[in-house]
Amino acid sequence: MSQLDSHLEENASRHEERLMELLRIASVSADSAHAGDVQRAADWVAALLSEGTQLQVETIPTAGHPLVYAESPAVEGKPVVLIYGHYDVQPPDPLDEWLTPPFEPTVRNGAVYARGATDDKGQMLTHLLSTLAVLEVEGELPLQLKILIEGEEEVGSENLEKYVAENQDKLACDCVVISDSSQFAPGVPAVTYGLRGIAYYEVRLQGPKQDLHSGTFGGGVTNPANTLAKLLAALVDGEGRIQVPGFYDDVAELTEREREEFAGLPFDEAKFKKQLGVDGLTGEAGYSTLERRWARPTCDINGLWSGYQGEGAKTVLPAKAGAKFSFRLVPDQDPAKVTAGLRQLFEPLLPPGIEMELIDFHGAPGVVFPLESPAMEAAATAIEHGFGSRPVFIREGGSIPIVNRFAKELNCEVLLLGWGLDDDNTHSPNEKFNLGDFHRGIRSSAALWQQLSECGIRSAECGAT
Amino acid sequence: MSQLDSHLEENASRHEERLMELLRIASVSADSAHAGDVQRAADWVAALLSEGTQLQVETIPTAGHPLVYAESPAVEGKPVVLIYGHYDVQPPDPLDEWLTPPFEPTVRNGAVYARGATDDKGQMLTHLLSTLAVLEVEGELPLQLKILIEGEEEVGSENLEKYVAENQDKLACDCVVISDSSQFAPGVPAVTYGLRGIAYYEVRLQGPKQDLHSGTFGGGVTNPANTLAKLLAALVDGEGRIQVPGFYDDVAELTEREREEFAGLPFDEAKFKKQLGVDGLTGEAGYSTLERRWARPTCDINGLWSGYQGEGAKTVLPAKAGAKFSFRLVPDQDPAKVTAGLRQLFEPLLPPGIEMELIDFHGAPGVVFPLESPAMEAAATAIEHGFGSRPVFIREGGSIPIVNRFAKELNCEVLLLGWGLDDDNTHSPNEKFNLGDFHRGIRSSAALWQQLSECGIRSAECGAT
Repeated sequence: MSQLDSHLEENASRHEERLMELLRIASVSADSAHAGDVQRAADWVAALLSEGTQLQVETIPTAGHPLVYAESPAVEGKPVVLIYGHYDVQPPDPLDEWLTPPFEPTVRNGAVYARGATDDKGQMLTHLLSTLAVLEVEGELPLQLKILIEGEEEVGSENLEKYVAENQDKLACDCVVISDSSQFAPGVPAVTYGLRGIAYYEVRLQGPKQDLHSGTFGGGVTNPANTLAKLLAALVDGEGRIQVPGFYDDVAELTEREREEFAGLPFDEAKFKKQLGVDGLTGEAGYSTLERRWARPTCDINGLWSGYQGEGAKTVLPAKAGAKFSFRLVPDQDPAKVTAGLRQLFEPLLPPGIEMELIDFHGAPGVVFPLESPAMEAAATAIEHGFGSRPVFIREGGSIPIVNRFAKELNCEVLLLGWGLDDDNTHSPNEKFNLGDFHRGIRSSAALWQQLSECGIRSAECGAT
Repeated sequence: MSQLDSHLEENASRHEERLMELLRIASVSADSAHAGDVQRAADWVAALLSEGTQLQVETIPTAGHPLVYAESPAVEGKPVVLIYGHYDVQPPDPLDEWLTPPFEPTVRNGAVYARGATDDKGQMLTHLLSTLAVLEVEGELPLQLKILIEGEEEVGSENLEKYVAENQDKLACDCVVISDSSQFAPGVPAVTYGLRGIAYYEVRLQGPKQDLHSGTFGGGVTNPANTLAKLLAALVDGEGRIQVPGFYDDVAELTEREREEFAGLPFDEAKFKKQLGVDGLTGEAGYSTLERRWARPTCDINGLWSGYQGEGAKTVLPAKAGAKFSFRLVPDQDPAKVTAGLRQLFEPLLPPGIEMELIDFHGAPGVVFPLESPAMEAAATAIEHGFGSRPVFIREGGSIPIVNRFAKELNCEVLLLGWGLDDDNTHSPNEKFNLGDFHRGIRSSAALWQQLSECGIRSAECGAT
C-alpha cells in the first residue's frame, strides 16, 4: 500500500466527521428561508479548503449564492484539472417520509442518510479530501488543480454559468472532473460519458378571479383544473411519444454500438421493478428501459396543484390550477426550441375564460463525450485502483447543465465519475451515500491526480463533441 | 303594518346579534379538528329554539355531528311544515384570501362577511327567528312546525339521511321549507323548483413506492401525475360532453317552456363574466349559460395534487398523484350508474406501474318539483310580502342531497326559498349575506306560516315528481 493510501485509511474517521458536519447544514438553495444555511455551507467549504497548504482560496459573491474557488500552483508541463461540485441541496419535502431527519445525518447499514449525502456533498467532498491528503502527504500536487464549488446547482446554476462565461482565462483547464452521478451498480463503478439535458417549466392557469361553488357555477364557467388536465395530457401520446411540435427533429439517435453495450450491461429489470415497488414499467415504445432512461427524451410532471387538497369533499370550482413539468433532452435538442414548441402546443388548447402563464425555469441541452480519450483511460485506471475493478462506460438520465457550459466555454473534456448508487434516493426522502463508496471515491480521486498528470493531455487535444 | 311586522322591525338589531353569535362558531364539519366547534354550534341552535314557548327541543346524537330538532303542537285541520337547515359550514381555505377572518363576522356595505353567512347559518336562522317572533307576538303558530337542523350538510348528510329514513312518522309533514339557495338577482327573489344532484369522487394514483429523481428514472418509470392528467382529461371532450359511458342515457331534457322561461330572465352575461373576472365562458355546446348551470350535468375537478408544489424547480418524479372531482347530475341520472361508468372509463386508461384507488364520497340524484301547486303559490305570496315583489321560478345548479331524501321518504313537496345572492361567495373566501335580505327573509318566513296554513294543502295532495 502506498504512503498516500495508508494516510487515507488512517484518516477515514476524520473524513466521515467532515462529511457529517457539512450534511448538518440545511443548504436548500430553492428556499429563500434557508439563505443563511446556504451561506454557512459556503463558509464551511472555504474553511476546509483553506487547510490545503498550497491552495489559494476565495469566496466569490454572486447575485445569488456564493461560489467557493481554490487554486494550486501551476506545474510545468502538466495538465490543469478543474474540479466542480455543489454544496447546495434539494428541498427535503415530503418531510414525514424521512425515517430520520434530513439534516441530522444518521448511519445505518454502512450508509449515511441525509439530504445531500450523495447529491452532491458526499461525492464532492471526495475530491476535496483527496486533494488535502495529497498535499499533507506529498507537500505538492502532481498537476494544477482548480476547484470550483457552487451553491445553485439545484436551482439552475445561472450565476455559475455567468461566472464561467466571464472567467474563461481564470478557469482554463485541460479537463473537468465531476462526481455527481452513480455507479452502474454496487461494485460496478462507471464513467459516465453522456448526460441528458433539461427544459423545466411551470404553467399557471387562472380562471375566475376567485374560487366558486361548483354547483352554482359548474357548467357555466371554464374550470382551470379541467383545462390543466387537457394541457398536460396533450404532452405525451399513448405510445410515450412527446407531442410538442418539432420535439424529435434534432434528437441524435443511439448508435448500434451503444445499443449493444447497454444491452450487455448487468441490468436486472425484475429487480429494478421490485426496488421501485411497481408491477410494470412504461415509456417510449421501441426502446429498452436503459435506453429510455439514458438516451431518449422524456416528459415528467413534477408537481400539480389546484383547489381543495384537504380531508373530505369540498365542492369548489377552483380559481387557479398549476403544474411543474420538465423534459429531459438528449443531444442535439435545443431547450429554446422546446419552449417555442410548447407554446405552440398549449395555446390552441386554451379555452375562453382561462389565462395562462408559462414560466421557463431553466434549460440545458444534453451532452455526450467521446469514449476513447487519454483522460477517460486515466480515469478508468484510477477507479480500478480505488474500487478494485475497471469501470463500465455508461450514460446518465439526469442533467448537470453546467457540464455543457464547461465543455463549450472552456473547450475541454468533462470526466463524470459517479460514486453514488441508483437507490441512493437522490431528490427523494431518505437520501443516502454508502460510506464505503465515500472512501473508495477519495482513494480513486487521489490516484486520478497522478494518472491525469501522466496521461499527456494538453488543452489542444481536448474538446467536447 | 301588522303587529308581527312591527315586532320584526323593532327586533332587527337583536336578530343581527344572534346571527353574529352563530357565525363566530367555526363549525367546519369536514375537519375533525373542529369537532368541538360543530358541537358548540348545535348547542347554540338548541338553546335558541328553547326560547320558543311552545317548542319541544331535543339534540339528537348521531354517529357524526348531532341533529337539533324542535316541534310545535299540531293544529287541527292545518298542515304540518318541516323546516330544514344546517349549522355546519365549508372549510374556509384558502385563508389568506379573506379580507377579514372567516369566523370574525364583519359588516361591510350592508352585508355580513363570514364563513357560513349565507350557507346556511344566515338563511336557516330566518325561519327560526320568524318562528320565535310569531310565538312571541301571537302566543301560538297557525300550523304545526317541525324544525330539523343538521351539522353534516357539507359532508354528505349521511347521518341525517339515516335518521329521516328511520323516523318517517315523527317527521311526517305536508311540505318541507328550506332556505339554502339564491335569489335570481338582487331584488328578484326566486322560488327554486329544481336542483342538480351530485356524484363526488377522489382518485388516488400510486406509482413507484417513493418519489424519484426525474432525471435518473424519467422515461423508465410510469409517472402517476402524467397518468392522472390522462384520466382527468378523458372525462370531458372538446365540446363539453362528458365521456363516462352511459352518462347521458337517463338525462331528462329541458322542456320547451323551461328553455323559454330561462331565456326570458334578466340574465346579463356580460355582467356575469365581469363579476367572475373572465373574458369568456365555456361548457356543453348547444346550451345557454343558465341552462348549463341549472339543468345540464357537468364535471368539475375540485382539487388536484402531486409532487412538489413549493417555490422553485424540483426535479422529482412523484410517487403519488390525486384529484377530487365531481359531476353535477340532473333528473333522472343515478349516481351509482355514474360510478360504474367512471370505473369503465378509467380502468382501461391505467398503464402498468400504476395502482388506482377510486373513492366514492357521496351522491344524490337531481330533483324537480311541479311548478303549479298551492304551496308554491303560498310561497310566492309570502315572498311578495317580505321582498315587495313576486318571485320568479328558477332552477339551481347546486345540490341539496337531503331534498331528494325528503321528497322520497316523506312523500312531500319541498319549497326552496333562497334569500342569498349569486355573488355571496358560497364555498369561497369572503362569503357574505346581505343583512337586508336577512330581514326580508325573516318577514317572508313569518308570512309563509300564515299563507301555508290557509292554502289547504294536505298530505294526500303533496308529492314530488
